[in-house]
Amino acid sequence: MNGIQLFALRLEAEVREGDDLAALLASALADAGLELQGDDVVIVTSKIVSKSEGRVVACDGTPEHKEALVLAESRRVLRRRGPLLITETRHGFVNANAGVDLSNTAAGTAVLLPIDPDRSARALRAALRHRHGVDVAVVITDTFGRTWRQGVTDVAIGAAGLRPVLDLRGTLDATGRRLEATVVAIADEIAGAANLVLDKAAGTPFAILRGGSPAWRGTGSVRRDLIRDPDTDLFR
Amino acid sequence: MNGIQLFALRLEAEVREGDDLAALLASALADAGLELQGDDVVIVTSKIVSKSEGRVVACDGTPEHKEALVLAESRRVLRRRGPLLITETRHGFVNANAGVDLSNTAAGTAVLLPIDPDRSARALRAALRHRHGVDVAVVITDTFGRTWRQGVTDVAIGAAGLRPVLDLRGTLDATGRRLEATVVAIADEIAGAANLVLDKAAGTPFAILRGGSPAWRGTGSVRRDLIRDPDTDLFR
Repeated sequence: MNGIQLFALRLEAEVREGDDLAALLASALADAGLELQGDDVVIVTSKIVSKSEGRVVACDGTPEHKEALVLAESRRVLRRRGPLLITETRHGFVNANAGVDLSNTAAGTAVLLPIDPDRSARALRAALRHRHGVDVAVVITDTFGRTWRQGVTDVAIGAAGLRPVLDLRGTLDATGRRLEATVVAIADEIAGAANLVLDKAAGTPFAILRGGSPAWRGTGSVRRDLIRDPDTDLFR
Repeated sequence: MNGIQLFALRLEAEVREGDDLAALLASALADAGLELQGDDVVIVTSKIVSKSEGRVVACDGTPEHKEALVLAESRRVLRRRGPLLITETRHGFVNANAGVDLSNTAAGTAVLLPIDPDRSARALRAALRHRHGVDVAVVITDTFGRTWRQGVTDVAIGAAGLRPVLDLRGTLDATGRRLEATVVAIADEIAGAANLVLDKAAGTPFAILRGGSPAWRGTGSVRRDLIRDPDTDLFR
């Protein structure tokens, strides 16, 4: 029986610029009576990564100010409807309002996405190796809308120690035929799974996934492996 | 600590038209030494739902034959590139090749999506209630590509006993401000999470999610709650 466990870790403190996320995670683990294991995937919401990196800016909350921030974070506007902008961010993500977020931050401020979330993930992974002596994988998540489907899901915006996509092309199915549609975006599935245990209103910015497949481990980045090349995109 | 567990159940037998999925699940549970619990979410891949419902048709494997099947399953073609068709299915799903799948089925055949996956989910839920005396939730999954991002993920195409989207609008964040972007597509996150334990090459068509939030329970359907109204879709 192939199984995984996911659990959220509570963080009481508000995260501020310069905070050490590895130390905060260590404290949250200790509060929960847990130790990191080498096959764990550590999932962190982008919100606290951004806060620790000082990606918090003044925002008076007016649509005009928010739009100016969104445009500054974007390299291309794909669609606009009322106050909603669908843009391509400087990273290459396509999402609503370039991830500029006015929730869970002090009044008068907005949180921007990390500048290089893959680098942030690698830095946290290295700090966790140093502190705990284990090589975990790290996934940094944010909440994105989707075309065609209602509702938002959490997806990976940065990753380290993990293959963001698992390429099963060439794998044979149970009947001996080649599998179709088999480049699986496991980093996004991990991000969405973690959101099932996280509670945005309750200060749980970390989740741990335990029992994942060894096949997930490896190198890669969200920017290189998960962002679709605009030239091959049928809807841009 | 808020936590969930996910595990896959193995099914040795090939599923055929008329097979009772509740009986197959009961047998897979018994093999694993497990009993269903009332808070479980049962995740089933659409492939075996389709097979049990006789949604298997002859296909000689040529691009022409496959395309004819795809077009028969679709009400609108959105994009075409080489043999790849992005269509809107008769259900309203937008995906590649209308879910027509030539893997994990006998040579010379193709599997189509269930005609009404929400109805299939309700039927399985009722059968499980009858057999085990517990009210589980059921999610039927299929593998879809996405715009903007590489790789496929599993999403929900049918659900029962579950709110496919969890509407947190009006919920206050940790700082007392209203949460943004808070209609969460939990059925899709559950489907993707289950795919982390399923192995398409190894005959594991069932997964169980244990420990989910009571807030997920309720009524709703994928068709009504998760499919975006084409009139409000910015990219169709």
